[in-house]
Formats: sequence, structure tokens, C-alpha cells
Amino acid sequence: MTELQVHNFSISLDGYGCGPSQSLDEPLGIGGERLHEWIFPADGDRAPVDERFVSRGVEGVGATIMGCNMFGPVRGPWEEFGADWTGWWGDDPPFHHDVFVLTHHARPRVEMAGGTTFHFVTDGIEAALEHAREAAGGRTVRLGGGVATVQQYLRAGLLDELHLAVVPVLLGGGERLFDGLGSALADWRCVEFAPSRSVAHVRLRRAAADFDTMGA
Amino acid sequence: MTELQVHNFSISLDGYGCGPSQSLDEPLGIGGERLHEWIFPADGDRAPVDERFVSRGVEGVGATIMGCNMFGPVRGPWEEFGADWTGWWGDDPPFHHDVFVLTHHARPRVEMAGGTTFHFVTDGIEAALEHAREAAGGRTVRLGGGVATVQQYLRAGLLDELHLAVVPVLLGGGERLFDGLGSALADWRCVEFAPSRSVAHVRLRRAAADFDTMGA
Repeated sequence: MTELQVHNFSISLDGYGCGPSQSLDEPLGIGGERLHEWIFPADGDRAPVDERFVSRGVEGVGATIMGCNMFGPVRGPWEEFGADWTGWWGDDPPFHHDVFVLTHHARPRVEMAGGTTFHFVTDGIEAALEHAREAAGGRTVRLGGGVATVQQYLRAGLLDELHLAVVPVLLGGGERLFDGLGSALADWRCVEFAPSRSVAHVRLRRAAADFDTMGA
Repeated sequence: MTELQVHNFSISLDGYGCGPSQSLDEPLGIGGERLHEWIFPADGDRAPVDERFVSRGVEGVGATIMGCNMFGPVRGPWEEFGADWTGWWGDDPPFHHDVFVLTHHARPRVEMAGGTTFHFVTDGIEAALEHAREAAGGRTVRLGGGVATVQQYLRAGLLDELHLAVVPVLLGGGERLFDGLGSALADWRCVEFAPSRSVAHVRLRRAAADFDTMGA
């Protein structure tokens, strides 16, 4: 079965996946851009372990799913706020495959340069995963953000791997990843701990299905 | 001014300083002992960076403050539960200096072997700090746990340094360090990020006083 994986999801030391007071001007919340500085270091020189994880988020990935907040600042019907909005990434987004955007508001798909096509899925996270698996053609499906979207897939038991980059900054508020998950992570384990000079990479995986049922 | 510092405070990836359901049998909560395995590795062989941080928690430390839950499982008056209780550490505790235990219940001080004396402070965290500073004789005062005690000192603005070891395990519940702190950490910064093979060490410090007042 094609796996659903989260790659390079940055959280602050105090557990936030974005900063407080998200807005049009601060789409990542106040201070939230500090979560991603390790991906775009000021000196342009990524540490080898960081480079490896960034590459892992692209190689072998055949389709992407994201929440509508990651796609854009649009809240509500597209007509009202952003009928022309085609994401943060310009005319040639860095995906180069089918991207499934979770939304409550239907919209025709948008074909971009470079092979990226945005599909707008209104019938829920399971339907989005089904579409993405088909589109991925045997490759991995990557789940983008934001926090609420990752939580939804975790709670539904649909995620197979979660790679976090713990960034040594304090945001003091925002959306916390490890919140309201109940026992959704009870069977999850750390399978890799690989710190770089700037972040601590942690790869978590759901225990295999035969482990899940051994106690039953 | 003698600094008040927290050393080697372990938190899980999901932010907990101890596991869920603390009890006499599980004083660190379920799974909580996994937070401290890096200090006592199974092969007995600490990584150099871990060794450096463990040493830093001893060298130059002249007195210790801890919450009563760290001292023992005693809840309520000593007569009822533990008039003979002298801590988890045996006859010769590893402190070798004055230790101030925060409690609501007065009790005469207890002198142990090796130079450790337990004092029981009933007049609050500021009084405990004052006593500890006197006892430390110019050396650092170390603040032990638990989570609630560290939070109290953080909220009161009395802590100078907080060294965390982020452990790549999930506890799923327990006491969360970064909770209910409001803006207490607004002026705090990461001054060192030093991962080992097993944990990510993060040293946080409060900005100097002249920074605090610059915006005023």
C-alpha cells in the first residue's frame, strides 16, 4: 500500500507548528518563519543531514495533500476571496505532480507549469487520500500542513510516517501539533533521531498492523 | 547575583516532563523513566556532549531547590505519610550541599551523610531562593523539578537559565513544561543547541536585565 508520509514538518521547542496571530501579512504566524530557516539557511549552506531530509521530501513522492490554509489565505468561497489564487509558489510550483487541496468549497482543478496540478477535494480526508494514492502511481503520498490537517490524518489512523524537525526557538503560541490527539499516537515510535547543527530530526512511524492487533 | 539555573531537565518530543498517571509505583509517570535513559545509558557509555551537560549540573552548584514531589511521594503532613522519608537517594544523596524542599508542611531539617542537608521551606519560592543563595556562597543555585516548580519560578521571573534535553520519545500525557506560562518566556532565547546521539540539548537564557527594560 502506498504510504502517506509527512516530511520536514518543523515544530518549535515549545511545540508549535506555526506562530501566534496568523494573518495575511504573517501567514506562518508571528515568528513562524524561524521554523523554516534551517531549510533556507542564511549562508545558503545546508548541513548534510538537513539536505538528506529535504531531498527525502521530494524523491519518490508522487502526489501531495495539503490543507487549504497551506494553499492560501483564502477562507470561505473562492469567488469571494481568491478565484485567481493559485498558491504561494508562483507559476511553476515545486511539486511537479498532482496536489490535492482539502477545502469545503468546490473549484475546478488548476494546471500549473512544470507538471503541478491543483485539485480541490470537498469530500473529506479519506477521499483525498484515495485520489492521491491513485495519482501517485506507486510512489509515496506526501502530506503537507498545516497542523490541523496533520492532526486530522493522525486521528483517523491514516498516516504512516511523521518526520519532524524540532527547531530550538520559542514561539510562545500558535498551533500545537501534539494537542487533542488522544491515543492516536499510542502505537507510534521514534525510528530515527538525526540532529543537525540547527535542528533535531525525528522520524516517527506507526507500528505495523500486525503489532497493532497482537494485544487484541 | 547568584544565578538560578535548571540543568538536565528532560522533556519528551510531545513536551512532557513526566509521564501520565504518576503514582507511588510510577513516580515519573508511565514511561517517564525513558526521559532519563540518556543519563544512565544501558551500555554505561555517555556521549561526550551528554557527559558535559551532566557535569555542568554539578560543577559550580552550591545549593539546590526542589519541589516536594521531587523529594518524595509524600502528599500532606509529614506525620501522616512520611516522617522518616529522607528522599529517593539513600543515606548519602548526590547533592553534597544544602537542598531546599518547597512544602506546605514544616519539618525540622535533616542532615544526611556526605554533606547534604535537606531544609523544608514553607514560606514560598522567593524565600527558598533567598535561603539557597545564602547557602550557595557565590556558586550557582540549581533548580530541580518537577514541572510545576520550574513553571512557578519561570512565571515569577526568577529563573536565569533553563537547560532542556529533548528526548525523542512520545509519552502521550503527563505534565507539560510549556503550558500556562503566558508571556513568561517572551524574553528568553536559545543560546546553545548541542545535540548528542540520543537527545537534543537546548540551553535557554533570559535576556539580560538591561534588555528587558530597553523597550520600557
